Amino acid sequence: MSKIGIIMGSKSDLPVMQDAIDILKQFNITVEVDIVSAHRTPEKLFDYGKNAHTRGFSVIIAGAGGAAHLPGMIASLSPLPVIGVPVKSSNSIDGWDSVLSILQMPGGVPVATVALNGAKNAGILAAQIIGSSDAQVQEKIIAYKEDLKTKVIASSQDLT
Amino acid sequence: MSKIGIIMGSKSDLPVMQDAIDILKQFNITVEVDIVSAHRTPEKLFDYGKNAHTRGFSVIIAGAGGAAHLPGMIASLSPLPVIGVPVKSSNSIDGWDSVLSILQMPGGVPVATVALNGAKNAGILAAQIIGSSDAQVQEKIIAYKEDLKTKVIASSQDLT
Amino acid sequence: MSKIGIIMGSKSDLPVMQDAIDILKQFNITVEVDIVSAHRTPEKLFDYGKNAHTRGFSVIIAGAGGAAHLPGMIASLSPLPVIGVPVKSSNSIDGWDSVLSILQMPGGVPVATVALNGAKNAGILAAQIIGSSDAQVQEKIIAYKEDLKTKVIASSQDLT
Amino acid sequence: MSKIGIIMGSKSDLPVMQDAIDILKQFNITVEVDIVSAHRTPEKLFDYGKNAHTRGFSVIIAGAGGAAHLPGMIASLSPLPVIGVPVKSSNSIDGWDSVLSILQMPGGVPVATVALNGAKNAGILAAQIIGSSDAQVQEKIIAYKEDLKTKVIASSQDLT
Amino acid sequence: MSKIGIIMGSKSDLPVMQDAIDILKQFNITVEVDIVSAHRTPEKLFDYGKNAHTRGFSVIIAGAGGAAHLPGMIASLSPLPVIGVPVKSSNSIDGWDSVLSILQMPGGVPVATVALNGAKNAGILAAQIIGSSDAQVQEKIIAYKEDLKTKVIASSQDLT
Amino acid sequence: MSKIGIIMGSKSDLPVMQDAIDILKQFNITVEVDIVSAHRTPEKLFDYGKNAHTRGFSVIIAGAGGAAHLPGMIASLSPLPVIGVPVKSSNSIDGWDSVLSILQMPGGVPVATVALNGAKNAGILAAQIIGSSDAQVQEKIIAYKEDLKTKVIASSQDLT
Amino acid sequence: MSKIGIIMGSKSDLPVMQDAIDILKQFNITVEVDIVSAHRTPEKLFDYGKNAHTRGFSVIIAGAGGAAHLPGMIASLSPLPVIGVPVKSSNSIDGWDSVLSILQMPGGVPVATVALNGAKNAGILAAQIIGSSDAQVQEKIIAYKEDLKTKVIASSQDLT
Amino acid sequence: MSKIGIIMGSKSDLPVMQDAIDILKQFNITVEVDIVSAHRTPEKLFDYGKNAHTRGFSVIIAGAGGAAHLPGMIASLSPLPVIGVPVKSSNSIDGWDSVLSILQMPGGVPVATVALNGAKNAGILAAQIIGSSDAQVQEKIIAYKEDLKTKVIASSQDLT
Repeated sequence: MSKIGIIMGSKSDLPVMQDAIDILKQFNITVEVDIVSAHRTPEKLFDYGKNAHTRGFSVIIAGAGGAAHLPGMIASLSPLPVIGVPVKSSNSIDGWDSVLSILQMPGGVPVATVALNGAKNAGILAAQIIGSSDAQVQEKIIAYKEDLKTKVIASSQDLT
Repeated sequence: MSKIGIIMGSKSDLPVMQDAIDILKQFNITVEVDIVSAHRTPEKLFDYGKNAHTRGFSVIIAGAGGAAHLPGMIASLSPLPVIGVPVKSSNSIDGWDSVLSILQMPGGVPVATVALNGAKNAGILAAQIIGSSDAQVQEKIIAYKEDLKTKVIASSQDLT
Repeated sequence: MSKIGIIMGSKSDLPVMQDAIDILKQFNITVEVDIVSAHRTPEKLFDYGKNAHTRGFSVIIAGAGGAAHLPGMIASLSPLPVIGVPVKSSNSIDGWDSVLSILQMPGGVPVATVALNGAKNAGILAAQIIGSSDAQVQEKIIAYKEDLKTKVIASSQDLT
Repeated sequence: MSKIGIIMGSKSDLPVMQDAIDILKQFNITVEVDIVSAHRTPEKLFDYGKNAHTRGFSVIIAGAGGAAHLPGMIASLSPLPVIGVPVKSSNSIDGWDSVLSILQMPGGVPVATVALNGAKNAGILAAQIIGSSDAQVQEKIIAYKEDLKTKVIASSQDLT
Repeated sequence: MSKIGIIMGSKSDLPVMQDAIDILKQFNITVEVDIVSAHRTPEKLFDYGKNAHTRGFSVIIAGAGGAAHLPGMIASLSPLPVIGVPVKSSNSIDGWDSVLSILQMPGGVPVATVALNGAKNAGILAAQIIGSSDAQVQEKIIAYKEDLKTKVIASSQDLT
Repeated sequence: MSKIGIIMGSKSDLPVMQDAIDILKQFNITVEVDIVSAHRTPEKLFDYGKNAHTRGFSVIIAGAGGAAHLPGMIASLSPLPVIGVPVKSSNSIDGWDSVLSILQMPGGVPVATVALNGAKNAGILAAQIIGSSDAQVQEKIIAYKEDLKTKVIASSQDLT
Repeated sequence: MSKIGIIMGSKSDLPVMQDAIDILKQFNITVEVDIVSAHRTPEKLFDYGKNAHTRGFSVIIAGAGGAAHLPGMIASLSPLPVIGVPVKSSNSIDGWDSVLSILQMPGGVPVATVALNGAKNAGILAAQIIGSSDAQVQEKIIAYKEDLKTKVIASSQDLT
Repeated sequence: MSKIGIIMGSKSDLPVMQDAIDILKQFNITVEVDIVSAHRTPEKLFDYGKNAHTRGFSVIIAGAGGAAHLPGMIASLSPLPVIGVPVKSSNSIDGWDSVLSILQMPGGVPVATVALNGAKNAGILAAQIIGSSDAQVQEKIIAYKEDLKTKVIASSQDLT
C-alpha cells in the first residue's frame, strides 16, 4: 500500500506541515513524519533521499523556509515525485526566499511546488498522485471536491 | 497504459512547452498535446477538465503566461494531478505574474508548480508520478538521473 | 434599470467586498451579491459568467485573493465589463499574487482592476460606468466628488 | 453617439496606445486621440479632465509610464470612467512604477487599470462599457469573443 | 525670510508628516501646513502649485501614500524645489507604490524623494536648501550634525 | 556665484551623468565634475565631503550604482543639499539596489533622490534649489517649464 | 590571539547583533563591540576602518539597516574580511534595502553578506575564518556542527 | 600553503566564475577548480564537502544559479568558510532566486554571500580571509586597494 513521507527542516515547521498530515489521514493514506534538516543533518538527508523509494514511499512532501534546500536535495537524491512546501518561517523575507529556493530548480530535477504555507494542498496533491493509479483514492478526491463545492454553495445561501 | 495531457494557453507557448513533449517521448510515455485557452475557449477548458480523468490521462501538464489561469482552472475541474508551467510570455512582468497566478492556489485545489519556463521538469515530474506506481518507468527515471551525473562528471574533466 | 453583480471567491472576502455593496447602495444602485468560487464551484462560475448579461446585469464586480482566477474567468465568459478587486487574503504574498493574477490578463479579455482591497473604488467605478449612459447617476458621481472635496477642505481647516 | 477619448503622456507612448485606437475602430466606435502630459501640460490636463463629460465622451483611456499620474489626475477631475494603461516606457523600472502609480488609487477615485502595455484590452473594456447600455455594441463584443475562440480552435488543429 | 510649505494628501498622513514640522521648528524656519489632495481637491492643488513661488515659499514638502500624485503634480505646477515624502499608508502595498509613484518622475519635472515615511529628513533637506544660500541656517545644520555625532558617541560609551 | 559639484563613483557612470552637466550648462550654472569612489577612493570622498561647502558649492549631485554609497556618504560629511542619482549600472539588480541604497537614508542625513538614471532631473533640481534664492535662475526654470509645455502641445498637433 | 570587531550603526541594532557576540563568546573568541555610524560619525568610521587591521582584529562584523553603508565603507577602508549583517530596522522596506545596500558591492571591495538579521551566522562565519588557519577553532566549529545535528535528531524523536 | 577550492554547479557558470580564478592567480594563491552539482552529482557534493578541510583547502568558493543549493550544502558539510556567488543564469528570475537561495541560510550554517555575478569579489574575499592570518597576503590586498585608488584618480584626471 502507498505511503507518503512528510519531512520538514525544523520542528518549528510542524504547525504549518500539520495540515498535510491531517488531510492525508482524512483520505486514509499512511504518512510517516520526520525532521530532516538539509543544513544540520546532511547525512540523514542523504540516507533519506537515497532510500525513500525502496522503503515503500510513493511521494515525499518536504517543507522548509528561508534558503530552503530540503525539497530540492531530496529531489536530487530520489526518483520519487517530491512536493515542496515553502514555509514562511521567522527568518524568511516575506516568504520570497522560501518560494524561490524551492521553485526554481534546474532542468532535470523537478520539485512540485505548492503555495506559501500550502501544506494542505501538498497533502491533496500527494493523494491525487496516488489516485492517478488507484481508482479508490481518486474517488475520494472526487468526493472531497464535491464537498468543497457544497460548502461554498451553503455559505452563499447564508448571505441572504 | 498511462497517458499525459499537455495543454497550453496559446500556440505561442509551444516553443517553451516542447521540452515537456520531448522528455516524455524520451521516456516512451504517450502524450497528447492541445491548445486550451482559459480566457478564449472556456467551454473547451470545461470539457477538457471535466473529462480528462475518464479519457485515460494520468497527469495533466498545463502551461500559460501572464495572469495564467489555465493550470488552476483545470485543477478546479479535474481530480488528476495538474502540473503548472509558468511561461515567461511577452506580456508578462518578468515572469512574476505567471509564477504567482499558478503557484498561489487556495487550499483544496493544488497545482504542482515548476520553475519559470520549466517545461522539461514538468515532463520529468509527470514521469516520476507515473513511476511512483510503475517500476519500469521509475527505472527510467533512475537511469536518467545517472546519465545527468555522468555528463556533469565528464564536463568537470574537460576543465583540466 | 441597471443592476450590478457583486461576487467573491469566499465568504471570508466579504469584509473587504462590503465596501462595494455599501457605496452602491449609497448611489441607490441595485446590487446582487453571491459567492462564486472559480476553484471550488466551477459549474456555478460557468453559469454565472455565461448568463450575467441576459439576467439584467450591467457590470460585474469580482473579488478574490491569492491566485485569483474569478475576475478573469468571468471576463472570459461574459461580454459585460468586469471589475476585479485584488483581495489581500491570509494566503496571499503581501497582495502581489492577488494583484498580478487579476491585472495581467491576455489581449482580448480585459479585467478593470482596482487597488488592493479597493472594493469601494470598484463600486464607484461601476457607478461611473452606469453614469456614462445615465445622466442621473452621473450627477450623483459629480455630487459625490464634490462631497469628497468638501470633507478634505474641512479637515484642513481643523489643522489650525 | 458614444465617443472615447484616448490620451497619453507623451508621443513616445503612441506605439503602445495605437492598439486601443485600432480595436475601437474595428468596433466602429469613434475615438479622439490627444497628447496630455500631467507633468508638462498641467493646464491642458485640467481643461481636459474638467470638460470631458460635457464634450460627449463616455469613457477616457489614459496611458502613461514611470510615475504615471495622467490616469489618476483625469479620474480626479472627471466623473467619467477612466481606464489606465501602464506603459513600460524607457524610464520605467521593469514596469512596476507604471503599474503601481496607476493601480493604487485612494478610496473615492478609481482608475480601471489594465495589464502593462495592455492598450488593446483598454479599448475592448471601453467597448464593453458602452456595450453595457448599447445592445448593438454588446453584440459586437460577443462576436469578437466568438472570433477569438474560433482562432484558438483553429490554431490547435494546426498542431497535428 | 524663507518659508516652507508642508502639504499632505490626507489628514491621516499628519502623524508621519509631523516630523518635518518639528525639525523645521527646531531650526526656527517658518512652516505653513495644509491638506491638499491631488485626487479629491484638484482645484486647490492647482492654486497651490501655481502660486506657491509668489506666496513666499522657498521649498514645498509634499507627503502622500499609495498612488501618490501630490508631490509630482506640485512639481509640475511650481518652479520651486519639491521634496516628496512617500507615506506608508494603510492602502499601500508595503510602501512600494508610494515610493515609485513619487520617485520615478519623467525627465523635466524632478521630485526630491526621501525615504519611506522620511518626513524628518524632508525637513532637514528643506533646511539644507535654505542653508545653501543662508550662512546662518547652514551653521545650524552643521551644529545639528555635530549633535548627532555626540549622541552616537555617547551611546557607544553606554555599551561598556 | 553658485556652483554645482557633480561627482560619480566611476567613469562608466558618465554617459548617464552627462545629462546633469548638459542641463546645468543650458541654465548657465557652473559645474565642476569629478570621479569620487566611496569604495575605492575613501580619502578623496572624505576630503570632498568635508570641504565642499567651503569651496563654494551650493549643491552636490552624486551618481552611483549597485550598493551605491557615494551620495549617502557625501550627505554624511557635508551640510549641503545632496542630490542622489541611482545609476542602473551593469552590476545592478534591475536598478533596485541603486535606488534603495540611495533613497533609504536614516533619520538625520537626507539624500534628495531622483529617478533611476534621472541625471537630467538632478540637474533641474539643483537649478531649482539655486532658484529658490535667486530670482534670475527661477525665471529660467519657469521658462524651461513653458518650453516643455510648448513642445508637448506641438507634438499633439502632429497627431492629426 | 585573534580578535573580532563587532560594530553597528545604532544602539537600536544591538538586540539583533547580540547573537554574534553570544556565539563568539561561546567559541571563546574575543570580541570588541562598538557603535560606529557611517552617516552620523563618519570620522570614527574612518579611524575604525583605517586602523582595524593594525589593532589586532582578524575580522570585522558590521550590522546596519535601511541604506546600510557601514559594512561597505569599512570594507572600503580595511584590508580585513568584513562580514555584513543586514538589519531589518524600523525604517527598512521589508529588509530589501538593508540586504541590497550591503550585498551589491562593486568589483574590488567585497562584503561577506549573511541573511537578514543573521548576526548569529555572522559570528559563526567569523569563527570559521579564524578556524581556517587555527586548528583548535576549527575543531570547535566541527563540534558545534555535531551539536546542531544531535539536537535535530533529538527533536525528530520527540515527534513520535 | 593555503589553497582555495572553486566549484560551480555547471560548466555554464564558468564565464562568471573565471573572475574568481583570475584574481586569485593574480594574488599568487593556489586554486583548484571543479564542477560539483548539488542536484545532479549529490554524492560528489557530499565527498567534496566532507573532505575539503582535510584536503588542504582554507576557503571554498561556490557559484550557482536559480534554486542555488551548492553553496549552502557545502556549508552544511564543511567547517570551512564558504563564499557563495549567486550566478544570474538563464533559468533565473532576474537573479533574485540565485541571491535569496544562497543568502538566506538558517542560523548555524552561514554562507558568505557576494553580489550577483560577483565572482571577482569572492576571490578577493578569499584572499582577505587568508590575509587575516598571513601578513604577506594582507600586504597584497593593501597594494591591490592602493592600485584601485590610483586607477580611479587617473580616470578622474582624464575628465578634463
